[in-house]
Amino acid sequence: MAHDALIIDNLQYANWSPKIFQQMQEGGVSAVHVTIAYHEQFRETVSNIEQWNRYFEAHSDLIFQGFTGDDVRRARREGRTAIYFGFQNPSPMEDDLGLIEVLHRLGGRFMQLSYNNQSLLATGCYEAEDPGITRFGREAIAEMNRVGMVIDMSHSAERSTLEAIEISSRPITITHANPHEWHPALRNKSHEVLNALTQAGGMFGFSLYPHHLKDGSHCTRESFCQAIADAAAKYGARSIGIGSDLCQDQPDSVVTWMRNGKWTRNMDFGEGSASAPGFPPQPNWFEDNRDLPNIAEGLSQVGFSQAEIDGIMGENWLRFYDMSFEPTQSAG
Amino acid sequence: MAHDALIIDNLQYANWSPKIFQQMQEGGVSAVHVTIAYHEQFRETVSNIEQWNRYFEAHSDLIFQGFTGDDVRRARREGRTAIYFGFQNPSPMEDDLGLIEVLHRLGGRFMQLSYNNQSLLATGCYEAEDPGITRFGREAIAEMNRVGMVIDMSHSAERSTLEAIEISSRPITITHANPHEWHPALRNKSHEVLNALTQAGGMFGFSLYPHHLKDGSHCTRESFCQAIADAAAKYGARSIGIGSDLCQDQPDSVVTWMRNGKWTRNMDFGEGSASAPGFPPQPNWFEDNRDLPNIAEGLSQVGFSQAEIDGIMGENWLRFYDMSFEPTQSAG
Repeated sequence: MAHDALIIDNLQYANWSPKIFQQMQEGGVSAVHVTIAYHEQFRETVSNIEQWNRYFEAHSDLIFQGFTGDDVRRARREGRTAIYFGFQNPSPMEDDLGLIEVLHRLGGRFMQLSYNNQSLLATGCYEAEDPGITRFGREAIAEMNRVGMVIDMSHSAERSTLEAIEISSRPITITHANPHEWHPALRNKSHEVLNALTQAGGMFGFSLYPHHLKDGSHCTRESFCQAIADAAAKYGARSIGIGSDLCQDQPDSVVTWMRNGKWTRNMDFGEGSASAPGFPPQPNWFEDNRDLPNIAEGLSQVGFSQAEIDGIMGENWLRFYDMSFEPTQSAG
Repeated sequence: MAHDALIIDNLQYANWSPKIFQQMQEGGVSAVHVTIAYHEQFRETVSNIEQWNRYFEAHSDLIFQGFTGDDVRRARREGRTAIYFGFQNPSPMEDDLGLIEVLHRLGGRFMQLSYNNQSLLATGCYEAEDPGITRFGREAIAEMNRVGMVIDMSHSAERSTLEAIEISSRPITITHANPHEWHPALRNKSHEVLNALTQAGGMFGFSLYPHHLKDGSHCTRESFCQAIADAAAKYGARSIGIGSDLCQDQPDSVVTWMRNGKWTRNMDFGEGSASAPGFPPQPNWFEDNRDLPNIAEGLSQVGFSQAEIDGIMGENWLRFYDMSFEPTQSAG
């Protein structure tokens, strides 16, 4: 039974509510990596943490903040969900290397080096040019490695991603994207990137955001699970997990803000278009956290073994958490 | 007499004091563009403006804040110095396009799109790669053009500079640098850049910072003035002014901060070196504002006409101020 296996969703950005926390429990989801900053700078990110502290206080029967891999095991034992914080942009660290350690202490465990546009650290996938990791970016990678903050290149451009994999002394991740070979969206990742990522011990999270899916909102569960099977054949099932990119219950104003932040007076439609500017509808087989066990069932139907399914649904992320969230041990 | 001509120094970052304001008056300096941010973000920049407000209050017999070209004329009439604010990095606008207009209202008149490193807008001259103006950078240039904030590319890389000249609808500037052909420092500018800048109506300010000078602290006044004459022959004397980069009375901790900001745990020596990490000594013919008339004398000795000298010493910058600081007129 998929319900009995460990389940981790390594990327969600829902319009959080008790209903959603309840659905996490019903879906048997032991851990969720939640985005707490897209464009927010440090102080605004702290305000978002304050909001999460109120959620943890009010809904302690359902959720608590996760800091280590062991918190996943605790969540599973207790039938709750451990919530891990992450940032889709380095905006929370502003221009200040020292904020990485502070953000890690506050629970930040994943940070994208860029989000669509050029950042101080790396290039985003919508820029015309990709010069790779910047001078500041090299310093930030070393500091993230040191303190135990995972480098996420989901929205970064190709060369920057390959360089981050190369420069980082610890495995990195792409938390939410799909193979470009399956669906050639700009945000999906090339074979070269996926190969380098997984060869270096990194993790790749499959996304269920319709713009990343072949046939979009009409993508079938079989097509999605077969894409995972094809990737597993190339990169190994142990390098794959789920990062659904579920944006449940968000109004369309939120996707407009994600794309436009405060950087433009014009309208950037990102993966959408003027005629379809909003959030696309989810496939009917993945609408909320209760549908995560559906994926396990689909993986079984495309021929994965139970051990492989357990890995993809959660054990692979847990192994990655165990090796990624602690500071590097000092020599001696 | 050079003393009777209008004098504008379009870049200083001194350790401000009544002594220096007095020296501005003694030198007959009617306007100085002062750096009020290297790495400061918006709120810190506002604190620096508060400090300047205290200077304006305490030393109103010597200085006042300049907003328009006419404030230079007023300063000259009254024997005072008009102080214009500028930023050597886009850090004061953070990630927020709307802050450009706010900063202009507060008196910001010049903003560099990058300072040595990659910024959100453009590339700095110390990066290994220069991808040119970013998506956000194009938006920022349009907004700076709209509100009347001048684009300064003094510390930017070659391609980014050429693209900024091309993209900007109004003339831009390099406030403080010298021709690379005269002294091949990384910060000095190529013929291609100087040609494109001045062909587009932009202004080039000659620097007296020793790392930008041939023979450094031992550079002679004749050599400096001949470099101006050589540039005038190529680009026209009306495109040239002075941007001394005078960092008078600053402790060496300040140049360390300029170079390292908060972006590295290592030590970046910039134009210096481990054996010479501090501010280099000024040439003995240019140590403070009282020496600006010396330059006019030197220009005369290398053959400039009085009209050309008046232009280089101040009238060229004043003409540029007049056409640059007002918002673009709306059509109709």
